[in-house]
Amino acid sequence: MTKKPCDTDIYCLTGEEFSKGRSNIEVVRQVIEAGVKTVQYREKEKSKLAMYRECLILRTMTRDAGVSFIVNDYVDLAMAVEADGVHVGQTDLPVPVIRNLTGGAMIIGLSTHSPEQAVKAVEMGADYIGVGPLFTTKTKKDVCAPVGLDYLDYVVKSMDIPFVVIGGIKEQHVTDLVRRGASCVAMITEIVGADDIGDKIRTIRNNMKKGKKP
Amino acid sequence: MTKKPCDTDIYCLTGEEFSKGRSNIEVVRQVIEAGVKTVQYREKEKSKLAMYRECLILRTMTRDAGVSFIVNDYVDLAMAVEADGVHVGQTDLPVPVIRNLTGGAMIIGLSTHSPEQAVKAVEMGADYIGVGPLFTTKTKKDVCAPVGLDYLDYVVKSMDIPFVVIGGIKEQHVTDLVRRGASCVAMITEIVGADDIGDKIRTIRNNMKKGKKP
Repeated sequence: MTKKPCDTDIYCLTGEEFSKGRSNIEVVRQVIEAGVKTVQYREKEKSKLAMYRECLILRTMTRDAGVSFIVNDYVDLAMAVEADGVHVGQTDLPVPVIRNLTGGAMIIGLSTHSPEQAVKAVEMGADYIGVGPLFTTKTKKDVCAPVGLDYLDYVVKSMDIPFVVIGGIKEQHVTDLVRRGASCVAMITEIVGADDIGDKIRTIRNNMKKGKKP
Repeated sequence: MTKKPCDTDIYCLTGEEFSKGRSNIEVVRQVIEAGVKTVQYREKEKSKLAMYRECLILRTMTRDAGVSFIVNDYVDLAMAVEADGVHVGQTDLPVPVIRNLTGGAMIIGLSTHSPEQAVKAVEMGADYIGVGPLFTTKTKKDVCAPVGLDYLDYVVKSMDIPFVVIGGIKEQHVTDLVRRGASCVAMITEIVGADDIGDKIRTIRNNMKKGKKP
């Protein structure tokens, strides 16, 4: 893959239902244009065939732009479209099982919600972890309650694994998150639901910079 | 795999919500005991992790008994538990894509609802097809209307690919279905919802025999 997902500043997830009538394809086009280097395809409602067709297009777009392309949930779909990675949750196939299916090349991300899960993610060989949800989010129906910033502080202090913060993050949060030690910030609605996606990404980047130590 | 799915008489699918409080594990145990040689794991509600754990047990049970084990919908799950096959629908990953992921060993079954889809299934390299739904079924929420027996007659007359009839089939239907040329009959509720699964399978077998040409 071109870049590890959590080397980059903004980790953008698709969410067509929050995209103000724009398609995932159109949103990703704008996100790539704004220089985002990691895109996760996250889709809960479409058929596997519809997702496959959409991901083939997104895979070409992201590859051409040198952008990492991660598929949420579906290991088979990730493999079928030769994604750079797959992201799963605590109730999906275990990371070692996925590693066995995908081989060494594919990045595996795992959502975690507690220090125990973070430690276990490392033991299982995850390449990076999601840390969240930090705030209340409306994009996941089955999500747990916000984990609180203490968990982020724990990961920053105690863990070596790359991580991305996620869950209800808005532009006004990112300065503090970066100040606390987050280097990669994941967002769905804040970006895909923006009136002007390019402007939104520039604002987020500026706010992230304010949190960086001089 | 031990046997091709459609060589066998009864193709039994799991359906825990119709199993009168019995677990999938318990139902499959009884189905195997009654001599059924093909079991499909079909589950729409559980987490991938829960399905994975259940399928590991079912895979061991079926392997020990020389029973073919097919996983519905989830190619990654089928691969992870080393199922004999995977069964997909018209809006899942295309058969050639699945073949590319699974290699040559895994059986691929495809649900079809029309002559056109049957012809295309052969072109795409499916190992067997589902022919149905023949009757009204309550186990699938997103299913199309019954295709009618004409489609079965078409497949018997015009297609060489192995097939299994499916969809709302009850014990009283199977004599006619076998008479029309079906050799493998798939059922969910009729079997898993039976008070006595062994008795039900014996009755179905007897009824199938009545349809066989002397």
